[in-house]
Amino acid sequence: MTITSFIPPRRTLMGPGPSDVSERVLQAMARPTLGHLDPAFIGMMNEVKALLQYAFQTKNELTFAVSAPGSAGMECCFANLVEPGDKVIVCQNGVFGGRMQENVERCGGVAVMVQDDWGTAVDPHKLESALVANPDAVLVAFVHAETSTGAQSDAKTLVELAHKHGCLTIVDTVTSLTGTPLLVDDWNIDAIYSGSQKCLSAPPGLSPVSFNERAAEKIRQRTTKVQSWFLDLNLVMGYWGGEGKRAYHHTAPVNCLYGLHESLVIVQEEGLENSWARHQRNHLSLRAGLEEMGVGFLVPEEDRLPQLNTVTIPEGVDDALVRSRLLNEFDLEIGAGLGALAGKVWRIGLMGHASNQKNVDFCLNSLRAVL
Amino acid sequence: MTITSFIPPRRTLMGPGPSDVSERVLQAMARPTLGHLDPAFIGMMNEVKALLQYAFQTKNELTFAVSAPGSAGMECCFANLVEPGDKVIVCQNGVFGGRMQENVERCGGVAVMVQDDWGTAVDPHKLESALVANPDAVLVAFVHAETSTGAQSDAKTLVELAHKHGCLTIVDTVTSLTGTPLLVDDWNIDAIYSGSQKCLSAPPGLSPVSFNERAAEKIRQRTTKVQSWFLDLNLVMGYWGGEGKRAYHHTAPVNCLYGLHESLVIVQEEGLENSWARHQRNHLSLRAGLEEMGVGFLVPEEDRLPQLNTVTIPEGVDDALVRSRLLNEFDLEIGAGLGALAGKVWRIGLMGHASNQKNVDFCLNSLRAVL
Repeated sequence: MTITSFIPPRRTLMGPGPSDVSERVLQAMARPTLGHLDPAFIGMMNEVKALLQYAFQTKNELTFAVSAPGSAGMECCFANLVEPGDKVIVCQNGVFGGRMQENVERCGGVAVMVQDDWGTAVDPHKLESALVANPDAVLVAFVHAETSTGAQSDAKTLVELAHKHGCLTIVDTVTSLTGTPLLVDDWNIDAIYSGSQKCLSAPPGLSPVSFNERAAEKIRQRTTKVQSWFLDLNLVMGYWGGEGKRAYHHTAPVNCLYGLHESLVIVQEEGLENSWARHQRNHLSLRAGLEEMGVGFLVPEEDRLPQLNTVTIPEGVDDALVRSRLLNEFDLEIGAGLGALAGKVWRIGLMGHASNQKNVDFCLNSLRAVL
Repeated sequence: MTITSFIPPRRTLMGPGPSDVSERVLQAMARPTLGHLDPAFIGMMNEVKALLQYAFQTKNELTFAVSAPGSAGMECCFANLVEPGDKVIVCQNGVFGGRMQENVERCGGVAVMVQDDWGTAVDPHKLESALVANPDAVLVAFVHAETSTGAQSDAKTLVELAHKHGCLTIVDTVTSLTGTPLLVDDWNIDAIYSGSQKCLSAPPGLSPVSFNERAAEKIRQRTTKVQSWFLDLNLVMGYWGGEGKRAYHHTAPVNCLYGLHESLVIVQEEGLENSWARHQRNHLSLRAGLEEMGVGFLVPEEDRLPQLNTVTIPEGVDDALVRSRLLNEFDLEIGAGLGALAGKVWRIGLMGHASNQKNVDFCLNSLRAVL
């Protein structure tokens, strides 16, 4: 066995994530590693917190990055907020709602599922009926931007309904953060998680999360221990939460946090509103080109995510062959369908650093050449 | 709020980890991100697996890196192998044995604690008595190299005892992997976890793990679901385990895996035996210098870890002041005591890339200047 250094090919990443990472962020990843209790590192962590507060549009004190990918951010929200026996209403309109159900049940909770068709937004009326039928529910969970379908739901309305019925909310914004409007404080979202590798365009491995005071209070008032030691916010708060003293909990992924920091500095430089507008502009440009080619969208126009374009594979076209030709001949990655949509759709990402006119043109030209 | 790019100071990391990361590994972290299902990335994952099998000295098929720091690797072992009601004997001789107890209990298991003094090795006779007294125990867990004390235990003997009494074993090798001899197959270790940021000298954020067939079988035969979705090996095996098809589970931390891959290539180039000898040689050199200065070791000579030198703070010396002067005047990080040893010891790491004569001299000279 002799294995040598790995030099990856240079792809254009236009799938559902990871998205293309800019040279600035890649270079940040390569800066010298610091000790995780070094005052210089702790200063950087405070900046990451402030930058995440801006990206999430929140003043929540408990705002930080879980030291693992988005799936762990999801688990962090559920493991901390669900106690055994808790009833949780989960709105499912794609793969990730199903993963929420798994999380609820593995935490000893009872999941009440509210189903919508894949490719549509969550229907607020169905949620309201479920809330009325389940007055003992304590939590509502849904996905703001379904990565498996490209559909966006009306988070503000869903959270209002949940609160009206006395429930806290957990919202998945893995694919929406900085790509489409998301206002955590204005919309009163109680617990939220995202990922580093979508519209932030940092490498995968970190999950930004934020909890408001109501959620933090529920966690402090638990009568049972959080089942995960690694994700127990009562312990993590000692490291990320307070000013000043940082108690050792686990070793933070130092260089990944450098990358996330740089990606958030870029978001701040551009400004959130400009970022949302850019994602929308490039989406419209891609849409125009796809429509010219006769390629249609899965999601009704009003619910489409500009950063994740889910299109129906044209009749008679070989899904796997097209994707592998795009990868091998053009170094272009687009995403396959997931779960029930496998073989039926492609997911074309225009996320963060990858959302630009050059990529739109490149993707359209490559698709034209292959189809 | 205007936050700019973060440029860390360049430290020499001689604490308990993270250790200094070489330029080669840092540059690998900055290579272009690939999709986590890209065939080129999957080829690299297969290489990481082969390289980890070499580092662990095992043929275990289920050998991979958990997508989170060592604490999550620990939790991965316990969450998968402990079912509610399982009795687990935990040998504690430092901080991390206590964390194992937390893990057992949060998984619904019953922890039987076997205590040894901090700074000594685990006493095999005490383990044997506990095994005799608890014939219904199903697991034994202990730390091979206690990061909080710098003591090494006789893993081979402890595993033999556990097996003689019908128990599987979970062994923490966060600080030992590639620093001191560790032979997973020869010693019949059933489940093992480590960290990327100690003797491998990759940035923190990944936890190499390995499970033999007996452990994998116990996981497959569980009657309850693993409480963590993110760490459920029945799901993760679909991504890391088999040849060929890689089912989507979570998004792997692509660039961190580049760094781990490069660090493992370096281990392979040097050879394990040479790496163990280098750690021992530099330890002896540091020891000679410290003894000249009248600084003594916490751990009896025969149980000392060469990669983590735990020394007693001389009478009348201000712990925090010395460490902050080393950091501010010399850019040198050494570690504080943890838990019961806080304020009583320093932990001087000579791990991986940081284990060299230049660092030994630098550390001794800096300490001389400050003391």
